[in-house]
Amino acid sequence: MKPLYSLTLALSLAASPALAQRIAPPTPPTVDPQVAALRDAALKDDVAWDIVEGLTTEVGQRLAGTEAEARARDWAVKKLTALGFSNVRAETYRMPVWVRGTEEAQIVAPVPQKLTLVALGNSAATPKDGLTAELVVFPTYAEFANAPASAVRGKIVYIGNAMEPTQDGSSYGASGSARFTGPATASQKGAAAIVIRSIGTDKHRLPHTGVTDFPAGVKPIPAAALSVPDATLIERLATRGQPLQLRLLLTPRQIGERESGNVIAEVPGTDPAAGVVLVGGHLDSWDLGTGAIDDASGVAITAAAAKRILDSGQRPRRTIRVVWFGAEEVGGFGGKEYAKRHGKERHAIASESDFGADRVWRVETQLPDSAAPVAARLASALAPLGIVAANGRAGDGTDIAPTIATGVAGVDLNQSGLRYFDTHHTPDDVIERIDPEQLRQNVAAWTAMLAVVANASEDIGAVKRP
Amino acid sequence: MKPLYSLTLALSLAASPALAQRIAPPTPPTVDPQVAALRDAALKDDVAWDIVEGLTTEVGQRLAGTEAEARARDWAVKKLTALGFSNVRAETYRMPVWVRGTEEAQIVAPVPQKLTLVALGNSAATPKDGLTAELVVFPTYAEFANAPASAVRGKIVYIGNAMEPTQDGSSYGASGSARFTGPATASQKGAAAIVIRSIGTDKHRLPHTGVTDFPAGVKPIPAAALSVPDATLIERLATRGQPLQLRLLLTPRQIGERESGNVIAEVPGTDPAAGVVLVGGHLDSWDLGTGAIDDASGVAITAAAAKRILDSGQRPRRTIRVVWFGAEEVGGFGGKEYAKRHGKERHAIASESDFGADRVWRVETQLPDSAAPVAARLASALAPLGIVAANGRAGDGTDIAPTIATGVAGVDLNQSGLRYFDTHHTPDDVIERIDPEQLRQNVAAWTAMLAVVANASEDIGAVKRP
Repeated sequence: MKPLYSLTLALSLAASPALAQRIAPPTPPTVDPQVAALRDAALKDDVAWDIVEGLTTEVGQRLAGTEAEARARDWAVKKLTALGFSNVRAETYRMPVWVRGTEEAQIVAPVPQKLTLVALGNSAATPKDGLTAELVVFPTYAEFANAPASAVRGKIVYIGNAMEPTQDGSSYGASGSARFTGPATASQKGAAAIVIRSIGTDKHRLPHTGVTDFPAGVKPIPAAALSVPDATLIERLATRGQPLQLRLLLTPRQIGERESGNVIAEVPGTDPAAGVVLVGGHLDSWDLGTGAIDDASGVAITAAAAKRILDSGQRPRRTIRVVWFGAEEVGGFGGKEYAKRHGKERHAIASESDFGADRVWRVETQLPDSAAPVAARLASALAPLGIVAANGRAGDGTDIAPTIATGVAGVDLNQSGLRYFDTHHTPDDVIERIDPEQLRQNVAAWTAMLAVVANASEDIGAVKRP
Repeated sequence: MKPLYSLTLALSLAASPALAQRIAPPTPPTVDPQVAALRDAALKDDVAWDIVEGLTTEVGQRLAGTEAEARARDWAVKKLTALGFSNVRAETYRMPVWVRGTEEAQIVAPVPQKLTLVALGNSAATPKDGLTAELVVFPTYAEFANAPASAVRGKIVYIGNAMEPTQDGSSYGASGSARFTGPATASQKGAAAIVIRSIGTDKHRLPHTGVTDFPAGVKPIPAAALSVPDATLIERLATRGQPLQLRLLLTPRQIGERESGNVIAEVPGTDPAAGVVLVGGHLDSWDLGTGAIDDASGVAITAAAAKRILDSGQRPRRTIRVVWFGAEEVGGFGGKEYAKRHGKERHAIASESDFGADRVWRVETQLPDSAAPVAARLASALAPLGIVAANGRAGDGTDIAPTIATGVAGVDLNQSGLRYFDTHHTPDDVIERIDPEQLRQNVAAWTAMLAVVANASEDIGAVKRP
C-alpha cells in the first residue's frame, strides 16, 4: 500500500501547490560530509567480497554444531583479528545436532520416476529399507489442515502451497507453514511421512531444506522437501486420477549435544555509557550449499562496514560490536546465547543482516523519541543509495530477537527479497548468487548507518514494543 | 560475420539509391494463402505442449536401451496413433547400454568439501571403496593437451574450459572437447580419473552429463562432470597454492546389448515418386531430468506440425514421415538404424529438431538447383515469424546425418541457442524450461516449412556436399 499512497500524494501535490505547502515534510537534515564520504568510499568496497569468497572457498558449508562450523569459527577469529578489530573471541555453548543421511525418493505408481528431495532439519528416518506408501496430495496447506486424520493415516502426505517472490520476503511466512507446522500436524493426524513442495520461488531441480519442529509429545516422522519441478510433476500426475505410491529412504540422525559458538569483534567506542551498537549476521549455514547468501554475505557486510569506521581515523562514540552468530539455522541458539551473556549490558541498537546480498531498498527504524533526529539523519544519509525510509517496527532477525526483546531500539536495512528465496537453503547457495555491485551497496548502507548511529549525540535508550 | 555484412549492405543501400537498385534482391515470392493460414493457426497450437507434458509426466526420463525408453515407445505409438497418423510402428534394434550408479565426490585436502558431479556416459567405475588421489588442475583444454604424461600419471585430472552461450550453439563444439576427447586423452596419459567443468553455460549446482568415448585400445577411466560452481570452487582453491586431493566414488556399469527403437508415423502423400519428407527428433533422453528440451520438444514440434498438414483437409504431394529416433544421446543408434532400413527409399529432404524449444531465428537450406524456388518460398513463408534466411550447408543433426550422408537435401530451422546449454543434459531438463509461446512459434515454422516443401511442384533430388 505504501507505493500507492505515495503516488496519490505526489499527484495531489502536483495538483495543489497550497496543499503541498501545508503537508510537505520538513526539510531533511543535511548529511554530515564525513558520513557521506565514508558511505561513498564504501561503494568501492572489496572487503565484503573477500570475506564471502574466503569463507565459502576455504571453509564451505558450516552446519551448526559440526566440525565445519568449528573450522568456520577458527577462520572467523583469524580473519577478524587480521582486519584489526579488538576483543576478537569465540563464545561457545552446547546445542543439539541433527545430521543428514541418505536421501532417495521414487514415485512407484502409476509410473516409476526418481525424485529430487532433501530432508528437513529434525526429520525422522524411514526404516532402513525405506518406506513405501500411498501419497495423498494437498495442493494447499489449507486443504491439508482441513483434512480428517482418516484421510492421511498411514500414508505419505504431500503439501504444495506454492510461494511467490515478494520484495519484503513476507510470502515466506505465508507459504512456509507447510514446512514450519506441516510435519508436526501430519504426525498428529497419523501420517507415515510428509513431503512438501520446497518453500522457494525458483523452478529449478534444487530442493530447499530448512528446519521443522516436532514439539514435545509429537512423534517425529520422516519429512522432506521436493524441488519445485518434482512437486509440480506430482501435482500433474495427481490430476490424472490414478493413485500415487511413493518410496522414501531417509536416514538422518540426531547425534546429541555438540559445541557451537558466536564469534565477536569490536570497534571500541569513546563513551561506554552510550551503549553498544550490535550488528552482525550468522556464521553457520545449511549443509547443502556453501552458505554464500545465507549468511556469509551478512557477516561480510556488517564486518566490512564496521572496518570502515575502524579505519576512518576517528573512534566512534559508541562501541560497535560485530557478532557472527552460531547455530542460527537450526533454532537461533547463538542469538539466545548472546542475550544470555550480554543482555544486561547497555545496547543502543541491534541490527542484523540475514537476507542475502541484494540491494538495500528501505530503512526502518524503531527508536525512542529522544532519538527521533537520528532517524531523520539516517534517512538523509541513505537516500542517495536509493533507500527509502519508513518508521515502524524494527529489530527483525532471529539472532537479535532475544536482545531486541529486552527493549533495545532497532534499525533494519531491508534488502530486496525478489531473488532471495530462489536459492535459499538449497545446494545453489554459492558465491555465484552474489552480485558484487549490490553487495557494495549494502556495505555503503551499513557504513552510513554505523557512522550516524554510533556517533549520534542523542541518547538512544529503550523502546517499548507491543 | 553475417549480421555485420547485412548492416554494411543496408548502410550502402541507404547511401546510394542507384546501387540499391542494382544489387537489391529480387522481390520475394508471395506466400500461398493456404500456407500462411496454416502457419498462423499454428501460433495457437496446443498439441506440442500436450506431447511434451505427457511424455515428461507419464514417462519421465527415457535412457536409451532401458525399460523407460521401451515405455516411451509404447507411449509414442499410442499417442501418434491417437493423433491420426498412418503406418505408426516401432522399429527396434539392439545397442550397448551404460547405466549410472552411485556418484560421490569430496575435496579431501586442503579443506573437506562435498562436490556435486555426475558420471559421463561410458565412464568406468572407481574401486568400490572409492579413489583418492591428487587433483591436477588445468583451467583450459589446451593446457591439459600440452601437459606431459608425467604431470598427470596416477592423478585425477581436472579440465575447466569454460563455455559461453552463443546464438547458434557453436561454442558447444569449442568447449566440448573437455568431454568429448578429454577422458580418452587423460587415460592415454596415464591419469587415474578425470573430472571436468560441466559443458554448460549456467552457474547452477546442476552438473551436465553427456557421452564420452574411449576408442578401442584406450582403457576407460572414471570420468565425471562437476557443476559449474563446484568447478569454480576448485579453480579458486587451486590459486591458493596448496595441493588438492580428491576422493571419487563412481559405480556406473556397461550392462551389454539391449533393445532400443525408432517410432515412425506418416502423413501419406499423393505422389510416392516425389520422395519422403523426413522430420523428427529423438525419443530417448538422458536419465537425470525428464528430457523436456532434449528432446521431447523436438518430437513434439515435428509431430504437431505434421498433424496440422494431416488435418488441413488436403493430402500433401510428398509423404511426411515423422520419426522419433531412439538412442540418440548415447551414440546416434536410431539414426544409423533408420538409414540402414530406409536409406534406399527416395527422400526429398531430411530435417531434425533437437535444440530445445526456444524460437526459430534462421532457416538454412541446402537444396538442389532445381529446387531453388523452394528456398525462396520458404524464406517468404517464414519471414513473418521473425526468421531470417540463409543458404549454405543444411542437414544438421545426429539422427538425420546418416540419411543426409546419402545425398539428401536439407532444411534446418535453427533455434536460439542462448539458453539451451543452461540446462542441457542436467537434472533441470524439465517442462519448466519450456516457454509455451516459443514452442508455438516452432510449430508454426515447421508447419509452414512442411506446407511448402511437401507440396513443392519442383523436383527435389540429391545434393552434393563437399
